[in-house]
Amino acid sequence: MKASILTIGDEILNGTTIDTNSAYIAKQSVANGIAIAGIYSISDSYNGIYEGLEIAGKNADIIFITGGLGPTKDDITKQALANFFKTELCFNASVFEKIESYFKKRGNKQVELNRKLAMIPSSAELIPNDKGTAMGMRFVQHDKIYISMPGVPNEMRYMLSNYILPKIASEKNLPTILNKYIMSAGIGESAIYEKIEDIEASLPPGTTLAYLPNLGNVKLRLTTTVNEDSAKAIANLSAIQSEISQRIAQHVYSFNENESLAKCVGDLLIKKKMTLSTAESCTGGYISHLITSIPGSSAYFEGAITAYSYDFKEKLLGVSNKTLNTYGAVSEETIQEMTRGLLKKLGTNYGIAVSGIAGPGGGTPDKPVGTVWIAVGNKNEVKAKCFSLTNQREYNIKISAQIALNMLRNFILENES
Amino acid sequence: MKASILTIGDEILNGTTIDTNSAYIAKQSVANGIAIAGIYSISDSYNGIYEGLEIAGKNADIIFITGGLGPTKDDITKQALANFFKTELCFNASVFEKIESYFKKRGNKQVELNRKLAMIPSSAELIPNDKGTAMGMRFVQHDKIYISMPGVPNEMRYMLSNYILPKIASEKNLPTILNKYIMSAGIGESAIYEKIEDIEASLPPGTTLAYLPNLGNVKLRLTTTVNEDSAKAIANLSAIQSEISQRIAQHVYSFNENESLAKCVGDLLIKKKMTLSTAESCTGGYISHLITSIPGSSAYFEGAITAYSYDFKEKLLGVSNKTLNTYGAVSEETIQEMTRGLLKKLGTNYGIAVSGIAGPGGGTPDKPVGTVWIAVGNKNEVKAKCFSLTNQREYNIKISAQIALNMLRNFILENES
Repeated sequence: MKASILTIGDEILNGTTIDTNSAYIAKQSVANGIAIAGIYSISDSYNGIYEGLEIAGKNADIIFITGGLGPTKDDITKQALANFFKTELCFNASVFEKIESYFKKRGNKQVELNRKLAMIPSSAELIPNDKGTAMGMRFVQHDKIYISMPGVPNEMRYMLSNYILPKIASEKNLPTILNKYIMSAGIGESAIYEKIEDIEASLPPGTTLAYLPNLGNVKLRLTTTVNEDSAKAIANLSAIQSEISQRIAQHVYSFNENESLAKCVGDLLIKKKMTLSTAESCTGGYISHLITSIPGSSAYFEGAITAYSYDFKEKLLGVSNKTLNTYGAVSEETIQEMTRGLLKKLGTNYGIAVSGIAGPGGGTPDKPVGTVWIAVGNKNEVKAKCFSLTNQREYNIKISAQIALNMLRNFILENES
Repeated sequence: MKASILTIGDEILNGTTIDTNSAYIAKQSVANGIAIAGIYSISDSYNGIYEGLEIAGKNADIIFITGGLGPTKDDITKQALANFFKTELCFNASVFEKIESYFKKRGNKQVELNRKLAMIPSSAELIPNDKGTAMGMRFVQHDKIYISMPGVPNEMRYMLSNYILPKIASEKNLPTILNKYIMSAGIGESAIYEKIEDIEASLPPGTTLAYLPNLGNVKLRLTTTVNEDSAKAIANLSAIQSEISQRIAQHVYSFNENESLAKCVGDLLIKKKMTLSTAESCTGGYISHLITSIPGSSAYFEGAITAYSYDFKEKLLGVSNKTLNTYGAVSEETIQEMTRGLLKKLGTNYGIAVSGIAGPGGGTPDKPVGTVWIAVGNKNEVKAKCFSLTNQREYNIKISAQIALNMLRNFILENES
């Protein structure tokens, strides 16, 4: 089963909007056993849409269309659809009623515009829009299914997941696609490959493994197609997942797709009823931001001190003037004192400290841009490490935060055993 | 002059990668007076590429192609290009030398692979790649220009801006497109529209105005096409920019495209030789992160305290126990004490404080999720305001940070006069 995606919108063609709808539709389709043959973005014009429908229909059984619906663009898209499917626009009373009641609630009375919005190609089967006013439409022509959806992402996503894909899956008797994930940190793509090369080489037919790296962490995705015995397929995929995990054991932090290290660390702290605080210099509050982005983080996160200046490292974290002047702010001695000072001052069970030169300025021959000290600890022990990162400020900040969270995860686990 | 964009890559078709290259190419093309007729994403396969070239060439004078180059995918793409342009793959000695020296520096000796990478369709004019090994290629067929670029974003961007677009602009004698920007904060799209409706209605022919909102701030973009007298066109556009700015004067923070509020506040502080610190509760260090993301921020930013718990608001910021227990952490009394405590403790010239309920949990009937107090001040005065935001945690954190930075900007400017 093959699909294509047609996105309608001048804002995509002039580069103002990045087309994220297509990636969403593609991902959901692939997860349902539908391959994507092509993605086509065309202009909000009659000819653009008509030609787009011809191109998108060429190599596909299903054509997903987004955009071109809504108050200002509606006419052209619906007229193009009506002509392409050799049908006519008709006033639809129930659609009109729905639009009227939606806008009345918002104090808006545009009867004429609403009447226009309620003109629907007569051969369309309507798809409910639970998040807005523009209805979805489904057409069938020469055995191909054409689905027109609004371009507003949350409306489109809800419609696709709740109405469109379930119907296609049941009609077309699609195979089930199973995915299992391994979220890893502190190990690179090629190092993982070396450790699991033999497992990958002997994957059963129809099962694939993808390496998806992001900011120093690697997501592994195992995929298989289930035709008959789904319990057996799940068990088989789980066995492979577990075999791979054992090879890179200490690097695996979750089996949930896209779970963040901040969430993983938070769950560990909740389980152990422990608390955390951070002392940040070059990361400037970014680690604290990642931790507090997790709902419920107030249960374990008490606070953070961003100490950018020497003065504040002394005043807020109790780093000694002598240490700063002898070894500098980016040194093992300072990072140790920052961590101990933080734990003493804030009294949390665990602490993270970071001090480095994020760049682009501030480097010296001894300590070039990208030199970053990271420490994690509790009242008994502080572990500090030095990293040589890049000359990109934003990247250095973000990767340092991931390294720090992973160091804390390992520290908590080591202290557990 | 019309162009189309063809992106090659299975990772786009299965939804793993969002196609950001197309938006970049589209934006740069439009800025050079080239309209985009369509964007097409197709698979890493011979047939996909060959058909893609046919479709993309249909309504366009220029066809930008990205992806499909590089060690693993190279063969198929180059073979498809060679056949499409009725030419042959030939070994290119100078390309081979370049690749050899690139990989030798990295201790990598794959002579056979390098020979394959150096096979180039013989009718291609090569385009230098200053950021990597895969060369760009330019073909001309039936008066249409086809440009093949690597898919790695920084390689493609450098090549496009430094070699490809300048050459097309000079060959095709393209009109110059002029843009002027107004970055505004603290005012919505429709409020701006009401204030400048008459200016917009009387824009000269060929001049357009776009409203581009992002996280509470609105970027205004004025665009005009210059055919002859460019000095006059610049003067005319500047006059309109200045007329619009006067109508929304206190909301305009920059005329530089995409300048952030954090950068604008930083520049103000540098100019006045003043310092800043922040006290954050619900924003959890995000404001501190935005400020310290600006290179050179250590000149004015001293530090930040994220005080998540009651205890830490007392211990680190000196908020009184009585205030917290009487009014709660999310109250005017607490935010006032947080700001004064911060300024006293850290001794900076200015301070920002935020305390609120980011959600999804923690709301009460009196103080529902989305209630956020924000204050800015110096030793003489603290200004505090309460906002009713949404039930989306991430959005609340990000919009609060923008509001706080804009409040500080206004506060600094008011104190100046």
